[in-house]
Formats: sequence, structure tokens, C-alpha cells
Amino acid sequence: MSHLRSIADLDRDRALGLLSLADSMAEINARPIPKVPALRGRTVVSLFFEDSTRTRLSFETAAKRLSADTMNFSVSTSSVNKGESLRDTIETITAMGVDAFVVRHKSTGVPWQISRWTDASIVNAGDGWHQHPTQALLDAFTIRRRLSVTGDFAGLHVAIVGDIKHSRVARSDVQLLTLLGAKVTLVAPASLLPPSLEGWGVEVSNSLDAVIDRIDVLYLLRMQMERQEQSLVPSLGEYSVRFGLTESRARRLQSHALVMHPGPMNRGVEIVVDPAELPGSAILDQVTNGVSVRMAVLFDLLGSGTGLHETSGGAL
Amino acid sequence: MSHLRSIADLDRDRALGLLSLADSMAEINARPIPKVPALRGRTVVSLFFEDSTRTRLSFETAAKRLSADTMNFSVSTSSVNKGESLRDTIETITAMGVDAFVVRHKSTGVPWQISRWTDASIVNAGDGWHQHPTQALLDAFTIRRRLSVTGDFAGLHVAIVGDIKHSRVARSDVQLLTLLGAKVTLVAPASLLPPSLEGWGVEVSNSLDAVIDRIDVLYLLRMQMERQEQSLVPSLGEYSVRFGLTESRARRLQSHALVMHPGPMNRGVEIVVDPAELPGSAILDQVTNGVSVRMAVLFDLLGSGTGLHETSGGAL
Amino acid sequence: MSHLRSIADLDRDRALGLLSLADSMAEINARPIPKVPALRGRTVVSLFFEDSTRTRLSFETAAKRLSADTMNFSVSTSSVNKGESLRDTIETITAMGVDAFVVRHKSTGVPWQISRWTDASIVNAGDGWHQHPTQALLDAFTIRRRLSVTGDFAGLHVAIVGDIKHSRVARSDVQLLTLLGAKVTLVAPASLLPPSLEGWGVEVSNSLDAVIDRIDVLYLLRMQMERQEQSLVPSLGEYSVRFGLTESRARRLQSHALVMHPGPMNRGVEIVVDPAELPGSAILDQVTNGVSVRMAVLFDLLGSGTGLHETSGGAL
Repeated sequence: MSHLRSIADLDRDRALGLLSLADSMAEINARPIPKVPALRGRTVVSLFFEDSTRTRLSFETAAKRLSADTMNFSVSTSSVNKGESLRDTIETITAMGVDAFVVRHKSTGVPWQISRWTDASIVNAGDGWHQHPTQALLDAFTIRRRLSVTGDFAGLHVAIVGDIKHSRVARSDVQLLTLLGAKVTLVAPASLLPPSLEGWGVEVSNSLDAVIDRIDVLYLLRMQMERQEQSLVPSLGEYSVRFGLTESRARRLQSHALVMHPGPMNRGVEIVVDPAELPGSAILDQVTNGVSVRMAVLFDLLGSGTGLHETSGGAL
Repeated sequence: MSHLRSIADLDRDRALGLLSLADSMAEINARPIPKVPALRGRTVVSLFFEDSTRTRLSFETAAKRLSADTMNFSVSTSSVNKGESLRDTIETITAMGVDAFVVRHKSTGVPWQISRWTDASIVNAGDGWHQHPTQALLDAFTIRRRLSVTGDFAGLHVAIVGDIKHSRVARSDVQLLTLLGAKVTLVAPASLLPPSLEGWGVEVSNSLDAVIDRIDVLYLLRMQMERQEQSLVPSLGEYSVRFGLTESRARRLQSHALVMHPGPMNRGVEIVVDPAELPGSAILDQVTNGVSVRMAVLFDLLGSGTGLHETSGGAL
Repeated sequence: MSHLRSIADLDRDRALGLLSLADSMAEINARPIPKVPALRGRTVVSLFFEDSTRTRLSFETAAKRLSADTMNFSVSTSSVNKGESLRDTIETITAMGVDAFVVRHKSTGVPWQISRWTDASIVNAGDGWHQHPTQALLDAFTIRRRLSVTGDFAGLHVAIVGDIKHSRVARSDVQLLTLLGAKVTLVAPASLLPPSLEGWGVEVSNSLDAVIDRIDVLYLLRMQMERQEQSLVPSLGEYSVRFGLTESRARRLQSHALVMHPGPMNRGVEIVVDPAELPGSAILDQVTNGVSVRMAVLFDLLGSGTGLHETSGGAL
């Protein structure tokens, strides 16, 4: 693997391999000094065309814990349409000796474009409504650890609730969770579903109440405030009544069921209860696990193909 | 000590202990390679809601010299009033594995609020008019070194001149200097004093000329330009005539007396002479000592309670 | 040498010495782990009054590969005219213990001004139309390596084409290349030449076609788009016809001739062919070599005068 642009870059074995590697990284993160020299001398550049402090900090933390050097290349939105100059920018930074670009962009496909102009590795940190593969990996990793899953996810039932249509998180999670054998049900009003779900391999419901008591994971998507103005939902209050996690719905969850959210949450919209009071909340675990999963991805891409415990220099 | 939010977090012994620790840090800073592995693997995040490049750089330098990783979280002023989202932001960054937040905010009390949402250590780098404890520690450290004070500050007389009312530096310095036994006189027009000085343990004067020849330290506060528009001072020129350090006043200082300022200076307002020509100027010493003092504070908070020279791995 | 503000800070031997040191740095950059502890504990601060992400990243990469700590001090254009406050800023950052400032400013001479206020080393990363000495060094280094020059540049013919008048790159390159013995011809319309070329030691031509088939290096300068509005060139299209590297001109280049550009390129203006298809293009080599050259300059300034392979601790 030289890039992680999409969950489609992975097969089942690669995905499970990354989750195992992330287990080793989580062990490192539990040490008194959570830092190893594995990627010393490697350079990771963040190339964020959209602001996302939390995702950028998570990748930066992951890179620093592996002793990589990190640099930020902030790109004003105005450069977006200058294809030529983006290419020159990528070629220039590559020529300085960069090993990986972590790319976020509002348009689908930009990480693929960029990977044609560089021999550095590309990690897609979100492209439009399309893909956010490290989010899917950290979600799968969180489910695996919290529900003590061994091997694949057969028998698990995950409901993903909310604005599926505009969500790269939903697309990536569906792809990875079904690859690993989970059953996925999308729960959304018709206006927030994509025009076609052919090939998704999921079930669909327009009622959260119809599924809430039989799922193992309740995955709430962030509701963008502008969907109300676009009349895709009648109102945020109405959305909350039909699709939000209220106290009465929380009581109907199975006792082992997890509640997950990619953040940042809109409290009072998709989540009405305080997640800190839900024993099943895995929302902060997702953040913590994000660092371990991104360490695994960066090590897999840049660690010269050596196994984590086999590097001659004792990298870890 | 798990936080440094206020000088009130310290008693006399803790304060003197930090000043001694800062002595050790100053020794490290005098080495050809002023860097030690004491905080390797620790992560310090700057959370500045108000711009202050000099304070941020000072903390960043301190953290890097102890080999901690540093990250910046820039917060636009617009997020200030979103209590909920600030809490989620803090919880999210904490979940990534941060060890300390260095916080600056225009509102009093924000560092306390934040400390309820995280188990990371909080260092207050200035909250409104309220506190700036590392400034007070670096000021005390500078006085101690320049005037060869051993033990506490009994017998020392410090005049703090200027806009006491709106100054977190004044509040922190008064608290620490009186805790250490110094006598403090506040020198200001009535309009720039707080409504009550009950409990401050200071003397007050409205004439710099009345005290200038009997003090050991002349501490000049920065005059905010907008105080003139608010009619709190008649004019900056008038202020300078009554409270500025002019050449004739400089000549009346005792020969051992120090001149101090928290920076940045308004030359021609609170300081009319060129400080580079005053033998008693300790203004650049304050900046240099700021790095040593912040190293001491970060090591004290994050160094696992081990003494500086007792760490098993020989941290320094 | 304690500063690199201008090529005039170098004599022929110092310049050749830096190019040899850059050869050693290029070897380091070719290693699997391109990082050495040579400048551990040194602090390099970028002080960019003009944006230039590529130059800043190049210096930052260079500093990190030598294990120096790096910090950015972003300066809004508004501070430019506050001479006093710039001085206090420099003195303050210096007092924190900075070893070098990398300075870019739109006004000629600012690096000299700054060097009067600090004992840190100053590297000029571009001041107005005046100097950009590391660009000249990386250009000379690229020519030397690509054309296998040993010793000085006698016998080499370099044409520098375009907006000489407003170009610090042209001034620095002319100075260094002639110092090393190369013959330089400036090719430009009269409106883009400086009023006098006395002391430059160059030839001048207003026709690229008159020299294209007899030069060893074709150095294209970036055309600023606003020159057209200022009527310094009739139009960018017209400029391109007379001075751009078109396909037919590319065919007339000697087979060993190099094509160089300081970047970022205006494709379709100064360069019409795709440089990726020119075997003589050294444009990405310039970027790669920039890191090696800046490592050499920083090591020379901050490495305590020890030779690269003679440091007691085995710095490299």
C-alpha cells in the first residue's frame, strides 16, 4: 500500500492488518512515554484546503509520536481552482523531500489528482462527500475494542443515522463495516439519502424507533445546520424528534450497545442526552483511537514495509 | 500541584520551590546545547483566544527545551461565547492525549472552567484582568537573581506604576511579592485603581516622585492606548509627565534599583528614557528568565513529581 | 561568517566552501534517515513579513534535518512601519535564546537593520528587489552538480531572462555567478532593466533568440502579472513571444544546456513548454538542492565553526 485514499484501497486482510497494527500503537500510547523513533527523519505535510483543527491535530499527534517531522501547508480556498498551480505546489513540496501528504479538500477526487503528481504517499483526510478512510478505520477499531470482536464483524448490526447523502463518513463506514462482515442499516428521511444505494449492501429505514432496540452500534452523523434552509429537513427540532438520541430512545438501547459520533456534535439536534451519562458512549474513545489508527496508517505507508516488531533497529 | 491558574494555587514554599527549580533551568539554558529529555513524549497545547506571540513563543521555547511536543490550537474570537462547543473542544483534544493546556483568554475564570473538563494540567497564560501567574514568577525570579536575594523578599520595596485596575500582571505580582514578604506600593491616578484594595496588603500613592528615591524595584505597567479615549487619563502626554520614567526620575533611582516592564513597552509613554541606557534595566532579563520559569512550571506539572536531578533515567 | 544577508557577505573561497558543505548535506539527504543531530538545541525563527510558503518550508525542512528547533513568527504587514516596535520584537525574541532569524521583507535593507538589534545570526530570505542569497547559492549549486563543474565557473555562459529590474534573484545570481567566474548575459526589454548596470560585470541583450544557441544555462525569471498594468511590457502574450521559452527555442538550446526558474512559474508566460518534457530542466533540482544549501548555510552559521566531519561529538 502506498496511499490510503479510499477504503477501496484496502481488502479485508489489509483492513484487519491495520486494525492489529493499531492495537500495537494503542499499547505504545498507554506507555509513560508514548513516543517511538519508528518514523524518525520522515516528513509528513498537512495540506488542508478546508479547516479541520481536530483532524489535523490528530494526524499531527500521530506523526509526532512516531518521531516524524510535521509541517503545515495552509491553503486558502482561492487556490482551489488553479489546477496548474496546485500541481506545481505539489511537485515543489515533493522535491523538498516529503514522505506523505495528509490531504483534506472540499472536492471529491483531489487526493487521486495529487497522487499523480508526487511519489509521496497520500492519506485522504476527507474529500467532499466522498471518503474519509481513517475515520472509518478508527470507527471499526473502536467497535472492535469496545465490543471485544475477534476476527471479522459478522453478526454485528450497526445503524448509521442522519444525513447519509452528504456524508463521507457514512460512505467510508458503510464500505469498511460491510467489508468486515457487519450488517448496516441506514436510518434517514428520504431527502437525506443518496439517489441510489445500489451496491452499498445495506438496509434502509426511515424510523429510528423501528431499529433502536435491536442494534449493537448507534452511529449518529452530524447534521449540518444549512440542511434546514435547503428544506432537506422540515426543521432541526423536527429532525431531533424523529432521528435524535433522546432519553427515551437511549433507554431502549441494548445494554451492550455503543453510541458513536464523528464529532463535532450538535447537542440538542442529533444527540439530546448528555453522552457523558451514557455508559455506551464511545465518542471520546473514537478520538483517542483516532491517534492509534493514524499512527498505524502512517507507519504502514512510511515504515519501509518492515513489521512493527521486526525492524532491525528496534524501531518501537 | 496539577494546575497553575493563579498565584493562589501556590503557598510560600511552593513558590520558593519553583524559583529554585527555575535556577536549575537557567543553568540548562546556559549550556552549549540547552535541551534536556525531561518531558519527552509529553504534549503541550497552546490554546490562545487572544493573540500574544511573545508569550506563546516563550512557552513553546520552554516546552521544546524540555523535549516536549508542542501544538497550537488557534481559536477565533467567535468561538468564545459557545460554552458547549468549547467544552467539546477541550474534551476532544484531551482524548487525543494532551498533557497540558496553556490558556490565554480575555475573560476572567476561563482556565478554571477548562480545568473542569480535562485531566490535563492547565497553565493560565492570562485571563482578562485577573491573573498571569508565570509573569509574576518570572518577575520574582528576576528580582531574586538581580538583587541576589536569598530566602524571601523581606525588606524589599517594589513600586508598581500605572494602570493597576485593568492589569492581571499587577494582581499576580502583588499577590506573589507580598506572599514572599516584599513591601509593595501601587502608584497610579485614582481612575486607574480598582474600586477596592481590601486584602491586597499594599500601600498606595498617587505620586511617583514621592517614592522614586526609596524603592528597590520600579515596575512600570503597559498603558493601553484606549484608556485615553475612555477619559481614564487626561492624555498620554500628561500621564507620561506624572507617571513615566523620565531622565530626571531615572537619576533619582537608588543605584541598585531595578526597572522592570512586562512588555511590550510604549516608548515615550510609560518609559521615556531608552532602557538600554539604564544600568538597572531588567526588562530583557525578564524575557530570558521567562523561558526558565516556564520550564520550571511545565516540569513541575508534567515531570511525574520526580525531582529534577533524581529521575531514574537521568532526565536532565 | 555570522550572517548571510547578501552575496557580498561572501568571498570566492567562502562561497565555494558553502557549495562543498552543501555536497555533504546532499549526501545526508540521500540517506534512508535524512536527519543528523548537528544543530540539536539550536533555535531557528522564521520572521516572514511577506508570505512565501515554499521558501519558509524549505528553511524549516533544512533546520529540522539538522535537528534544530523551529518556530514561526508571523508578522502582519501592518507592523512594517513601526520601527521602534520591530526593534523591541527582535530584542525580545533574542532574549528568549534564538540562534538565527530567517527574514523576508518587502523593503531593502531590513536584514541589516535587524542584525543591529540582535546577536543571533541573520539569514536574508529576500529583501525587496535587493538580495536573496540562498537562492543564488542553490542556483550555483544546481549548475555545479548538473554540469559537473569542478572548481570555479570559468567558461560557463548563463543567460538570465526577464524582469531584471525588480528581481532580487537576478541581483544575487549575477553577483555570485560572476564571483565564481561565469559569464552572464541579461536578456530583457529596456523597460525591465535597472537604470544602470555599472559594476554588474554582465553583457546585455534584448533578444533571447540572439543568445539561445550559445548558452549553458537559461535562467527564466518570474514575470509579475502587474508589470503589464504598469505598461512595462506591452502584454504578457507579447512578452512570451519575445522572451518566453517556446518549443522552437527549446529546440535551439545546446544539448547539455540547463533550464532554470526560481518558481513559482507562470506557465504560458515565461515558460510555454512543459518543463517536465525538457531533459535540461533543472527546476525541481533547484527545489531539492535548496534544502541542502540551506542546511549548509545554517550549519555554517550555527555549528560553532566546527567542520562538518570534525565535530567532537560526531555531529553528523
